[in-house]
Amino acid sequence: MDKNFIFHQLFEKETSTYTYLLGDQKTKEAVLIDPVVEMVDRDLKLIEDLGLKLKYVLDTHVHADHITASGEIRKRTNAKVGLSSAYDMACPDLHLEDGQEIQFGNYTIKVIHTPGHTSGCLSYSIGGMVFTGDALLIRGCGRTDFQEGSSERLFQSVRDKLFSLADETIVYPGHDYKGFTKSSIGLEKKLNPRLKLENSKEQFCEIMNNLKLSYPKKIQEAVPANLLCGLPFKSEILNTGFVDGIPTVTAEDVYTKLGHVKVIDVRGSDEYNNELGHIQNAELSTLGPKLDKRLDGEDKNNEVVFVCRSGKRSGEATRMALNKGFEKVYNLQGGMLRWNELHFPIERDMGGS
Amino acid sequence: MDKNFIFHQLFEKETSTYTYLLGDQKTKEAVLIDPVVEMVDRDLKLIEDLGLKLKYVLDTHVHADHITASGEIRKRTNAKVGLSSAYDMACPDLHLEDGQEIQFGNYTIKVIHTPGHTSGCLSYSIGGMVFTGDALLIRGCGRTDFQEGSSERLFQSVRDKLFSLADETIVYPGHDYKGFTKSSIGLEKKLNPRLKLENSKEQFCEIMNNLKLSYPKKIQEAVPANLLCGLPFKSEILNTGFVDGIPTVTAEDVYTKLGHVKVIDVRGSDEYNNELGHIQNAELSTLGPKLDKRLDGEDKNNEVVFVCRSGKRSGEATRMALNKGFEKVYNLQGGMLRWNELHFPIERDMGGS
Repeated sequence: MDKNFIFHQLFEKETSTYTYLLGDQKTKEAVLIDPVVEMVDRDLKLIEDLGLKLKYVLDTHVHADHITASGEIRKRTNAKVGLSSAYDMACPDLHLEDGQEIQFGNYTIKVIHTPGHTSGCLSYSIGGMVFTGDALLIRGCGRTDFQEGSSERLFQSVRDKLFSLADETIVYPGHDYKGFTKSSIGLEKKLNPRLKLENSKEQFCEIMNNLKLSYPKKIQEAVPANLLCGLPFKSEILNTGFVDGIPTVTAEDVYTKLGHVKVIDVRGSDEYNNELGHIQNAELSTLGPKLDKRLDGEDKNNEVVFVCRSGKRSGEATRMALNKGFEKVYNLQGGMLRWNELHFPIERDMGGS
Repeated sequence: MDKNFIFHQLFEKETSTYTYLLGDQKTKEAVLIDPVVEMVDRDLKLIEDLGLKLKYVLDTHVHADHITASGEIRKRTNAKVGLSSAYDMACPDLHLEDGQEIQFGNYTIKVIHTPGHTSGCLSYSIGGMVFTGDALLIRGCGRTDFQEGSSERLFQSVRDKLFSLADETIVYPGHDYKGFTKSSIGLEKKLNPRLKLENSKEQFCEIMNNLKLSYPKKIQEAVPANLLCGLPFKSEILNTGFVDGIPTVTAEDVYTKLGHVKVIDVRGSDEYNNELGHIQNAELSTLGPKLDKRLDGEDKNNEVVFVCRSGKRSGEATRMALNKGFEKVYNLQGGMLRWNELHFPIERDMGGS
């Protein structure tokens, strides 16, 4: 890279995570790859100290071991957040595809889809360097046993895509646990005990299937948070959690807080008064254009619970609200089926709504 | 640097220490700066993997927070150990001076004496990079309150020597506690809160005098060990320690192990039978040419205790033996004075020796 290219590798010790800052000294535009939520102040201070203006925050993937700083940094800088389109997530601004190019200043990052550790893992390549996230680590690679991981896909990603880069390409990984800071494609072809050229796909899968790793300490917290770009999960009245990446609340909790929290029933009007009934004071607003319009009139700071028959449509409603910028919206887990199972009181206005 | 220049930055998490490997792809010669004893296997494996041959291990200074791997690596690779001549230490092979040049392959490292954190701190400069040890840290600097530290000297070292390097020179420090991996002379001139150009020497000293830092956890172990190039401190029979960097044993301990350990009395022959007497079976070999010759005939694996009147000459004897490669030699603390104070038995051969 030329002398105007700014590059800083940054380390977070607790989870051994690397963050990378790339910048253009001339135009001052910058990109941050894989920032960690605990290190936001350090990273933004460095960007400020260097006189840079952050254009993009790119995550290589939805992390399971730490919370991304992307959402928080977007809030504080107006940078756009980029993540793989493969996740079909609401929070990123850019849904990145294999081969896509990302410009900042006079430089271009090329997106390489390298699934296997997760379904949406991306590597970012720029001028003789490649940021491989957890697809390719120094003398290792990311695990493939959760988040739609696949040893076969990872093998193909590394062998067909990363190993087709020039041997001298510098590999900057998402983590290193032994204190290495970089490697190269050539070195990994030769020295990576899992992925070196002499190993077959079968040998690789055999190794990966026998790793017997325990789950990352923070996975229960990190994955759902990262599906919202790591934004701090807010709830004031309800005790909430995450199910399948959607903020969720139990029927029991909603029941004890009835009257203090807004409930929107997103079923059809015919269902609202059927045998399952509806929750007292629940407002009917059917999923679709009606709900869409309804939410545009709602204060985004309000705490809202969505309910439907089983929790599926209300999950979609929750996601729709998150996309609109609501931060305290929740899916009632199990819907009216669960509500009735627990024998909580229901209403049926025979006049309809 | 050209494309044959090999460079790896390595991190040790517990003490946040950086080690640097520099190599020549063409001649395979390599230099390691500031290796940490716990990471020897990682570092030597990397050197082997890269097909390099280690020529020098250079320490920037006598570390107080971790034990150097220099002695251990010298044993395993025959590399030469370099350290500042200012320490007047026995263990290094190279006693480095300001301005000295160190060659490996087609590259040359320039030695810059940058005292202040300790009296013998060196920085190593090569092709647009400078390895600053603890003289200049990223947005900080090493403390100056022990190991002959001096805020005034550190200020001069950084301002007159390091800051006279080109602004774009990359600064690779001995430590970083926030996860930064590098800086530049230009950035530190502007951003270093202690040493930036707008600060006066008085302001700097004021800051340094008010740091109120606690001592490094490992200082009692690290400094003495590092005075022996970090060699694991060996003793089989005795319970030993370090005083002023010299392996030392108490009179009490020697007394309980009499008959199991060799004792050499390094006083003059006239003192051997004076009022203080000598320890039973202690062998008389006066400090000087006589002892020098005597040690050449001794097995270097033997455990030997040196004794004199007060412990001063026997300290010199211990150092002489360490220089000769003995690893289990000790100074009897307090000498015959202490021995008599404790009323341990003495002998006096009236016939002389």
